[in-house]
Amino acid sequence: MEHIRRNERLAALTRLLTAAPNQIFTLSHFCELFGAAKSTLSEDIDILKGTFAHFELGKLETVAGAAGGVRYRASMPPEKAFNFISDLCAELCATSRVLPGGFLYLSDILSQHELVSSMGTIIAQEFYDAQPDFVLTMETKGIPVALMTAQTMGLPLVIARRSSKVYEGPAVNINYVSGSSGHIETMSLNRRAVTEGTRALIVDDFLKAGGTAKGMVDLMAEFHVDVVGSAFVMATAHPQNKCIQGEKALMIMDVDAANPGTLTVRPADWLAHRKA
Amino acid sequence: MEHIRRNERLAALTRLLTAAPNQIFTLSHFCELFGAAKSTLSEDIDILKGTFAHFELGKLETVAGAAGGVRYRASMPPEKAFNFISDLCAELCATSRVLPGGFLYLSDILSQHELVSSMGTIIAQEFYDAQPDFVLTMETKGIPVALMTAQTMGLPLVIARRSSKVYEGPAVNINYVSGSSGHIETMSLNRRAVTEGTRALIVDDFLKAGGTAKGMVDLMAEFHVDVVGSAFVMATAHPQNKCIQGEKALMIMDVDAANPGTLTVRPADWLAHRKA
Repeated sequence: MEHIRRNERLAALTRLLTAAPNQIFTLSHFCELFGAAKSTLSEDIDILKGTFAHFELGKLETVAGAAGGVRYRASMPPEKAFNFISDLCAELCATSRVLPGGFLYLSDILSQHELVSSMGTIIAQEFYDAQPDFVLTMETKGIPVALMTAQTMGLPLVIARRSSKVYEGPAVNINYVSGSSGHIETMSLNRRAVTEGTRALIVDDFLKAGGTAKGMVDLMAEFHVDVVGSAFVMATAHPQNKCIQGEKALMIMDVDAANPGTLTVRPADWLAHRKA
Repeated sequence: MEHIRRNERLAALTRLLTAAPNQIFTLSHFCELFGAAKSTLSEDIDILKGTFAHFELGKLETVAGAAGGVRYRASMPPEKAFNFISDLCAELCATSRVLPGGFLYLSDILSQHELVSSMGTIIAQEFYDAQPDFVLTMETKGIPVALMTAQTMGLPLVIARRSSKVYEGPAVNINYVSGSSGHIETMSLNRRAVTEGTRALIVDDFLKAGGTAKGMVDLMAEFHVDVVGSAFVMATAHPQNKCIQGEKALMIMDVDAANPGTLTVRPADWLAHRKA
């Protein structure tokens, strides 16, 4: 094997680690790939750690133990995360986004990869410690942010459907009361989509009363899966008591009851507290 | 500013360029960031080009002209792309995935970020030259692969809805005949979602007769947008004549008419030809 210089190793290491976020690579793996000694690779990793920290490119972490190695985790400093969400709130408060009946036009924001990718990073950072095994969302609008969260955490994404379709195979269905319409709806998930005894992180676009989120929790109970956390792009200020607890929303939307055409959107309190 | 070594610059450059694929960065931008001369940065980029090529990490390209600079494009060698799709086909042919009526259980594959990310790379590579301004998909199952294609190409993603919802705002609706059900369906897109005179790349999960795809083309015509290409994860072998033309599918599914429980999935011909 030709000799590979440190310069080249550092560039390749950066690409390989950041392309598979939250995945642990052993030093031996890289030693083999580059034909270099462990001590050399250790030095490489130390240099990268410093560079990543200096340029705020995320965190490179060494994990000790038998299953140890090195992993990359995306991260966004609390101040930067707060500012990103604040800017988004300002954009969302623009009059042209408020629709009749106090609805807010959000769809374009929920499908832009730069935006959902940053949201995914903020959510992932909050839930690494909860150690979920997969990310769960309910179709449709939450899919992009859930996918980006799953990618950032190196986890599979599981999508519950509004009803079971012929091309979905044997499925578990549950009924739930939608908070927004008050109607009884059906939620469906393929029998083999998740494994008993695993841990789910719910990621979705919008939380109002929490009927759909509660439905996802109930659906997971049918699979004997623990829900270890839930995150939403947007939650409404009212009702204050949601059907689920401990949820983390990125933004809070408040509609003026006297004048449904007027609404405000602000960053959630936990984002402000983390920064302080 | 403290002195930043080449080692550190190369790692940071790799991260910054690959985190914003297909986006052109000027050398001046990096000169300012690192406090280094243009000649130094040019050398850095040359080293990175070699490293990326050597480890098959994608392409670093220098773009000449007034709006020039350097950009990163993900890429997958034809042989590797063919093998990736072949492996996926083998996995999909497993008996347990074939559902009554000749349907195929695909949903789990369409939501795994490693898989849709590789599919996005293959699709992006095929359509860089068509210079689309955005990626268009129809909810729901194509969203992850469309999002990853959009990210790889550095483009916005636009999602057409099955019907216009109150929270979507003023929308353009069209009717189309679904190839699979033969029913008349409605497709809807916010008036402000796309700009007149731009170019769309359609990315979706499944192509059968092409009714939905034709619907997307018609919808774009209402917006005076050109469709410059279309890509699908899976297309059926029959009917051979689709409602649209020039589509690129990654996989072809063939159902044995005499025995709908037997189906085969194979890589599309263009993937094999490219490799040859």
